[in-house]
Amino acid sequence: MDTFEIDSALDMHLHLRDGDMLKLVGPLTSETFSGALVMPNLVPPITTKEALLSYKKRIKEACIEDKFEPYVTLFFQNDYSYSFLEDIKDDIIAIKLYPAGITTNSETGVSSMDVEVLRPTLESMSKLGIPLCIHGETNGFVMDREKEFMPIYESIASSFPDLKIIMEHITTKDAIELLDKYDNLYATVTLHHLLITLDDVAGGMLSPHLFCKPIAKRPEDRDALLNAALKAHPKLMFGSDSAPHPKHKKECCGCAAGVFTSPIALQVLTQLFEENNSLDNLNAFISLNAQKIYDFKPLNKKVKLEKKKFVVPSSYKFKGEDVVPMYAGEVLNWSISSIEDKRD
Amino acid sequence: MDTFEIDSALDMHLHLRDGDMLKLVGPLTSETFSGALVMPNLVPPITTKEALLSYKKRIKEACIEDKFEPYVTLFFQNDYSYSFLEDIKDDIIAIKLYPAGITTNSETGVSSMDVEVLRPTLESMSKLGIPLCIHGETNGFVMDREKEFMPIYESIASSFPDLKIIMEHITTKDAIELLDKYDNLYATVTLHHLLITLDDVAGGMLSPHLFCKPIAKRPEDRDALLNAALKAHPKLMFGSDSAPHPKHKKECCGCAAGVFTSPIALQVLTQLFEENNSLDNLNAFISLNAQKIYDFKPLNKKVKLEKKKFVVPSSYKFKGEDVVPMYAGEVLNWSISSIEDKRD
Repeated sequence: MDTFEIDSALDMHLHLRDGDMLKLVGPLTSETFSGALVMPNLVPPITTKEALLSYKKRIKEACIEDKFEPYVTLFFQNDYSYSFLEDIKDDIIAIKLYPAGITTNSETGVSSMDVEVLRPTLESMSKLGIPLCIHGETNGFVMDREKEFMPIYESIASSFPDLKIIMEHITTKDAIELLDKYDNLYATVTLHHLLITLDDVAGGMLSPHLFCKPIAKRPEDRDALLNAALKAHPKLMFGSDSAPHPKHKKECCGCAAGVFTSPIALQVLTQLFEENNSLDNLNAFISLNAQKIYDFKPLNKKVKLEKKKFVVPSSYKFKGEDVVPMYAGEVLNWSISSIEDKRD
Repeated sequence: MDTFEIDSALDMHLHLRDGDMLKLVGPLTSETFSGALVMPNLVPPITTKEALLSYKKRIKEACIEDKFEPYVTLFFQNDYSYSFLEDIKDDIIAIKLYPAGITTNSETGVSSMDVEVLRPTLESMSKLGIPLCIHGETNGFVMDREKEFMPIYESIASSFPDLKIIMEHITTKDAIELLDKYDNLYATVTLHHLLITLDDVAGGMLSPHLFCKPIAKRPEDRDALLNAALKAHPKLMFGSDSAPHPKHKKECCGCAAGVFTSPIALQVLTQLFEENNSLDNLNAFISLNAQKIYDFKPLNKKVKLEKKKFVVPSSYKFKGEDVVPMYAGEVLNWSISSIEDKRD
């Protein structure tokens, strides 16, 4: 097959940042994606309706107009009242929970993952039908952090059977196995965790541009993630976790975590699914699964790809910002030939 | 205790490089260490008597004269003849074996670790009493490379019971356990592998200056190494594997592996052994064990340390070279108060 069409691609885990960085990366996502679930870990994080609507407005201004829907999220707090959540319910797609200090801008996350501590907000969310997205890592040894979080997922999933829980950016075989154990557990997986292991980060030279949180794990973990994605496991969605960091913060002594994949995600996914004879499942993985899980209808956007060499830019720039994408300077086998946008 | 004396400190695994880098790091080691086993992985590697003696001469010229003995090594090759080894025997302390491509400048290492392939050289070494130092890693997944090498150590140790085999820079619990299984197996351990795990390299921000090969492993591995060192396990020697890389090759996109510890090793080891109530064992770990294992008498050099703050320089420079040490800019509790050098 030399051409392929992706319908209404959705990125269910995206960092768009703010300011000039938003103006740089917003257009890159909104060019090819129909919509994206946007993370709320700004500084300060999004915890009020005012901040939420204002951020949504800034995203819409930065993105390609009328061709992209940002699905915004709230930063989880233990003390959200039922009435506050009821009022904000229609403006958000989900609430994102971060353990405190676990990743970029998560300092004000929850300091205890005890179900009883989280209960007030979770009970309201469950009643109101607001999904819960979780960054599921403990502060243990870096290779064990996600695995150690599994009992916490289990405890929340069993305590709130009506709450939809999304395990974000999963990286392990353990998380894939947990997916099938609880009806109300779902997951996103990134592009890079389908492709790399710790070997790619630190097995040869050290590769700052592949350093991310959660860190890439073992070959058997990557294989389990890839197999589930290729067969479009119905509880698994694509979420790039594409996280732009300025070049100087990646190539330095003590560099920040995050891989920037938005502008190359569709091309690489097409190549990956084609190589594994799974192109028939790509639209489910990248759009239909998310529509069913979150129960919404995205903007209609068709991206046509063709099997034609595409050289990934060495970096993307806007004003003072300079972001290096995954596969910078390398050649991909698939490129985007046209984008068709139809409002229903 | 507020003072401590180290007698004839030996670094049994050291990279001194060549040229200006040798002129920068040679004096830093030879100031405090009585002697060091110097690795032969130059470009090209040391494989002839001429190259060996010429390198030894350059090291002596670069180091503090008459106060330091470089114990030089040959780069293992499958085709060394018995007569060549017999002739070079008294000029070397050991021969170092690298699997091809496994670390810096090891491209011309052996391409098979099959005992039968290695047999000719190993049989000659065994007969002549030349110890074998091994960089024991497979080319598997980065966290498994040393563990996967254990059967190869076992195969060589059991095939050549009279050959002294040193497992270099061990990083795992598995290697510590193997030490006690074969009479002819010994090991060196670095300073940094007594102190760090993968968490320190990639658990928070990425730390290029702690990136090394073999990569730092899990907490239980570090604990096993530290316990063995603190009790001065008689088959374990200190070998810093101190490896200077120019600053620009560490703080860049795709950085080189190696931690530079030579100028701070004695201070940090004293602090570490004191904190663990093991100062009585430090001289065995850092000198006596190596003297017994390799059967030699080092130059007499006494280093007196006192419990007094020492700020580690942010880098060491010589001409165009600029090397960042471990703990750059940080404060240590012990400093060197005097160095006494006596020729017997």
